[in-house]
Amino acid sequence: MTTNVLGYAASSPTSALAPYRFQRRGLRSDDVAIEVLYCGVCHSDLHTARNDWGGTQYPVVPGHEIIGRVTEVGPGVTRFKAGDRVGVGCMVDSCRHCNPCERGLEQYCAEGATFTYNAVDRHDHTPTQGGYSQRVVVSDRFVLKVPDGLDLAGAAPLLCAGITTWSPLRHWGAGPGRKVAVVGLGGLGHMALKLARALGADVTLFTRSPGKEADALRLGAHQVVLSTDAVQMAAVGGRFDLIIDTVPYAHDLNPYLPTLAIDGTLVLVGYLGDLDPLVNSVPLIMGRKAVAGSLIGGIPETQEMLDFCGQHGITSDIELIRMQEINDAYERMLKSDVKYRFVIDMASLKD
Amino acid sequence: MTTNVLGYAASSPTSALAPYRFQRRGLRSDDVAIEVLYCGVCHSDLHTARNDWGGTQYPVVPGHEIIGRVTEVGPGVTRFKAGDRVGVGCMVDSCRHCNPCERGLEQYCAEGATFTYNAVDRHDHTPTQGGYSQRVVVSDRFVLKVPDGLDLAGAAPLLCAGITTWSPLRHWGAGPGRKVAVVGLGGLGHMALKLARALGADVTLFTRSPGKEADALRLGAHQVVLSTDAVQMAAVGGRFDLIIDTVPYAHDLNPYLPTLAIDGTLVLVGYLGDLDPLVNSVPLIMGRKAVAGSLIGGIPETQEMLDFCGQHGITSDIELIRMQEINDAYERMLKSDVKYRFVIDMASLKD
Repeated sequence: MTTNVLGYAASSPTSALAPYRFQRRGLRSDDVAIEVLYCGVCHSDLHTARNDWGGTQYPVVPGHEIIGRVTEVGPGVTRFKAGDRVGVGCMVDSCRHCNPCERGLEQYCAEGATFTYNAVDRHDHTPTQGGYSQRVVVSDRFVLKVPDGLDLAGAAPLLCAGITTWSPLRHWGAGPGRKVAVVGLGGLGHMALKLARALGADVTLFTRSPGKEADALRLGAHQVVLSTDAVQMAAVGGRFDLIIDTVPYAHDLNPYLPTLAIDGTLVLVGYLGDLDPLVNSVPLIMGRKAVAGSLIGGIPETQEMLDFCGQHGITSDIELIRMQEINDAYERMLKSDVKYRFVIDMASLKD
Repeated sequence: MTTNVLGYAASSPTSALAPYRFQRRGLRSDDVAIEVLYCGVCHSDLHTARNDWGGTQYPVVPGHEIIGRVTEVGPGVTRFKAGDRVGVGCMVDSCRHCNPCERGLEQYCAEGATFTYNAVDRHDHTPTQGGYSQRVVVSDRFVLKVPDGLDLAGAAPLLCAGITTWSPLRHWGAGPGRKVAVVGLGGLGHMALKLARALGADVTLFTRSPGKEADALRLGAHQVVLSTDAVQMAAVGGRFDLIIDTVPYAHDLNPYLPTLAIDGTLVLVGYLGDLDPLVNSVPLIMGRKAVAGSLIGGIPETQEMLDFCGQHGITSDIELIRMQEINDAYERMLKSDVKYRFVIDMASLKD
């Protein structure tokens, strides 16, 4: 039995998000029905709503930083029960049998993961719709437990901004004795600072904006380097084992590569597209350095990250908005006018 | 007491190499004097002779794939004695106390390694001159032992082409169960095939030239993929843990990135310059893949490589030339008309 649900959808690349009614599927054996309490607002939501990457199927209900409460579970579900505090991130399904899926790297599923919105359900072939809505229905494998004590609204951005920075921090070994830099202080960057600091790394923020120093230090940076200042950049030459680059648009990587240590890696997590201007290979070769990429994170490491955040009291710095304010929030997000993530209070979305 | 030595030098970017007399230093305590028997001909020799990278100080005697016989040692030298078969590669000194030097990664010396030619000796500030000459004098730390039984002429290219491919193969774990591809079948590429195969990896050659298959299979490849054939390229999508890219000029990396497995790395070893055309970040992010660089190799791993080649009977496929033929050899090298490395028989260089 499907459920009629109210959400906010874009109906074309140029239309504002507006109320939209649609059906959520009845529960399959492994499904968890979740009342959405909070949903973070990610740049990807905006890119998809406006078809910036192509391929958007309208109407589309964005939202993949979902925090909610379980209302009902399918007969095969044992890990969740009504009332549980749970999260859903960027993925709601994958093939589950390929090598990456078996290793808990569902984001790299060989057959392609099923994303939370603007995708097609692998079983009933209906469009997936995201968390800007009253209710979501998700297979239990892709539902995360939210630790007790974690503020629910602040926890929402952990499901994308959090895991997107956690996964490379863990994969490339951020921790005591390791020097980590973060490029860009936005939704992803502010989470990277908090998580890298809590992991015990020495943490630096690269920024082009001189005004961000106090905030960066408060969020976890040990130091701030102004990337437009050649003297400051030279002073950190050869320093970093890992650079997490969160910048979501084309930007010059060349100033950062000389700041990597031997065997250091710059990991792109925010920008999909051509590396423009041209990257020069000389610093890569002269120090066995690498430019890599990383996509969100797998389900087991998302749970690991949530548990870690529960232990360390880490949430996102957020600005809570009403569902009706989403279009203004998009405009402000485009100007980086948010510290550091908008989160929609879904109680604002009444029938 | 300095020694008067005959070599071949370039005296300007446009002049042919020609006989040139110069002085080799008298032995310092840790020095080894070596009669040069064979010297391989590397693309870097030509680039330096013609000032392609800028910074060439003339006259310059190229040559950094040196095989010779010890004629004399300084009083502090215990590891070598007159008559020993030895090799010298791209470096003749480094600071010896920085972190990379202490880890045996002299090629990444924080103060800059001293290269075998077109550099300046750290102690007496004289120009270094390479192996296109009768004799070299090198600190014992930078002299390699050549295993018994290894053909001396064929061993010369191991000192640059060999170690340049060995180092990334070892660093990124080429061995049984790992799939390695090599881009380009020249001096470096043919060594990469031999070494990767002997290490136990599954080995593929990417080439743009259909005629290279038989040779590639003979050299160690299990398969050959024509990189201009979209069907063949699609068939190896997501396959390789490691790609060793030996191409020495600007070329498009984008066709190769989708052939990397999750967590795979493409390592540039041949090309210093802008990555033109633009590299697209999507395949990096969608599979946690990396583009990295690697420079020759350290002294301990060069000895490891020589010992491995001794155990496996691996040498370079060479064409032996006389010193007087070097200018013709350069022209043929520019046309990739050599299988797969020129080596100069220094017995041809008589006073």
